[in-house]
Amino acid sequence: MWRVRKVKTITVLGAGSWGTALAMVLADNGHTVNLWGHKAEQMEEINSKHTNEKYLKGIKLPEGIKGFSDLSGALEGVETVILAVPTKAVREVLQKVKKTVSNPVIIVHVSKGIEPDTLLRISEMITEEMDDRSLRDVVVLSGPSHAEEVSLRHPTTVTVSSVNMEAAEHVQDLFMNQHFRVYTNPDVVGVEIGGALKNIIALAAGITDGLGYGDNAKAALITRGLAEIARLGSKMGANPLTFSGLTGIGDLIVTCTSVHSRNWRAGNQLGKGMKLQNVLDDMGMVVEGVRTTKAAHQLARKYNVQMPITQALYEVLFNDVPPKQAVDSLMGRMKTHEMEDLFNILGEKMTE
Amino acid sequence: MWRVRKVKTITVLGAGSWGTALAMVLADNGHTVNLWGHKAEQMEEINSKHTNEKYLKGIKLPEGIKGFSDLSGALEGVETVILAVPTKAVREVLQKVKKTVSNPVIIVHVSKGIEPDTLLRISEMITEEMDDRSLRDVVVLSGPSHAEEVSLRHPTTVTVSSVNMEAAEHVQDLFMNQHFRVYTNPDVVGVEIGGALKNIIALAAGITDGLGYGDNAKAALITRGLAEIARLGSKMGANPLTFSGLTGIGDLIVTCTSVHSRNWRAGNQLGKGMKLQNVLDDMGMVVEGVRTTKAAHQLARKYNVQMPITQALYEVLFNDVPPKQAVDSLMGRMKTHEMEDLFNILGEKMTE
Repeated sequence: MWRVRKVKTITVLGAGSWGTALAMVLADNGHTVNLWGHKAEQMEEINSKHTNEKYLKGIKLPEGIKGFSDLSGALEGVETVILAVPTKAVREVLQKVKKTVSNPVIIVHVSKGIEPDTLLRISEMITEEMDDRSLRDVVVLSGPSHAEEVSLRHPTTVTVSSVNMEAAEHVQDLFMNQHFRVYTNPDVVGVEIGGALKNIIALAAGITDGLGYGDNAKAALITRGLAEIARLGSKMGANPLTFSGLTGIGDLIVTCTSVHSRNWRAGNQLGKGMKLQNVLDDMGMVVEGVRTTKAAHQLARKYNVQMPITQALYEVLFNDVPPKQAVDSLMGRMKTHEMEDLFNILGEKMTE
Repeated sequence: MWRVRKVKTITVLGAGSWGTALAMVLADNGHTVNLWGHKAEQMEEINSKHTNEKYLKGIKLPEGIKGFSDLSGALEGVETVILAVPTKAVREVLQKVKKTVSNPVIIVHVSKGIEPDTLLRISEMITEEMDDRSLRDVVVLSGPSHAEEVSLRHPTTVTVSSVNMEAAEHVQDLFMNQHFRVYTNPDVVGVEIGGALKNIIALAAGITDGLGYGDNAKAALITRGLAEIARLGSKMGANPLTFSGLTGIGDLIVTCTSVHSRNWRAGNQLGKGMKLQNVLDDMGMVVEGVRTTKAAHQLARKYNVQMPITQALYEVLFNDVPPKQAVDSLMGRMKTHEMEDLFNILGEKMTE
């Protein structure tokens, strides 16, 4: 049944919670993992104590994970590189990788976002930064996955996607085990768009919760949110079915219903009446959904797609529209024929 | 924009939480509502105190709701009847309605289930019990909606469906207001199947939560659960897109993520190691998902559809398979190509 697993050395760039959790999965599978981060002290902790307390509290790391603060050491002789850095650090890190590697590598990115202004997906940013000498294939890994749960070896399913399905299957083989199930899907655009845009809906879900509206409102928001993500995604070339899968509705559910989600928490505070700048100052972290709302708002115009939830959130975030007014006006829209909306998603695909 | 609303007298059969909450929506819209229940004392409470404390604690009912314990009084001269009784009481109540009404009525059913053994949907049971003299049209109303939230006038969206779209629009007009948004969808089969089968997935979600697995596992379960509901539904003639809407994924989310859901709670106790009979005794109420699992198991055979989650739950409920073994074996299935699965859902529709 199983393809025989060859044990390899794999590099993970980014030692935050997600990069470290993925390194654990690989190490559990017998691979040696070079985990790179720029803080020497944190890398020292990983090598001496086998912990990464700031990002995965109370978790013992497998000994197969080696910390590196030196990029060239981390990349030496490897064929596969997991890119687990924040979206805004992607280009800077790639430029260093390009200079360092001596052979073309497979880059597996695990971040979620759209680059503002260029409106590029992350795989497009990777292709743009790298060249034939440094890049063999790009794979995206995405799905409903809190890092903490992966580190506890709780059951988790994710999807890998690539224009080269052999590369996707190679990554599937590296990660697949009893707790961490990996599906493949050839639809790179759909996988990346679903992962990025769910943060918008999570922000909006936080707002309705903050306003004291209930589960009925949130379920409606998630359902309609999925529909507008699918509308935009299919115009961008995605297969609309991808949005019904793990990287679409699956990831959306996890992000919208967990109080641990940073985007949900930011929305919740907005719903309770806090101003955006205060929310961001208060959290002291990037809230990816805020940048993504701006990017999606631009994409909706570019592709001429109706995205009422994105539009309403944009007004709240950037034009000071009170959250209650925005949500109530969303609820009062005159669309009353559910199937018109849903058919619009698949319309183009069905008539091909 | 709005069709002009004609004020009417409408009968609601069943004075539980959902029937009463729907009566409130109708009364808010200016209609007179004859709310029928078989407990005289409860009807007296509705008429004298304008409360229904057992089912909607702390809620003041609008004065337009009149309690009736006498069926013929409740049905006198009405054109539209909302059927809000438990699935297992449907036939008995319909037989009385048939004898009582003097003109054909529109029956709007708001229950969720499949009749065991006959494997009929509720609209089919209605058509079977009634005749041309007593029945004009059947409409189903379904969607993500806790009754308590509707009674608090929190934003809620539902879908109405009928083979006669004029009847569906009539019902849409009766209920639609600022807090309670009503969409139409012509796909009766999809709306009914989604509403009934979500209880299976809610039971399974309760089990994974009871086992201490996390949000990742639950999101995967909901996503895969939606896929198997859609696979069965489309074989039964549903439009697969309906399962991406309010009565599909929307209702599934509300039921699987709310600790108030009876099915989720039953599953949770099973996951913690309690035996089915003890769970049912402990709850003292019908757990609709248990009956539905049996019906869906029969439907999967009849239509020759793979339903691995339903199958696993069936083994837990009726063949004493330990929940952990069932869930772990589900996670370990060798399906690794997400799109194969998803394409299977739409396969038939796409090649038509």
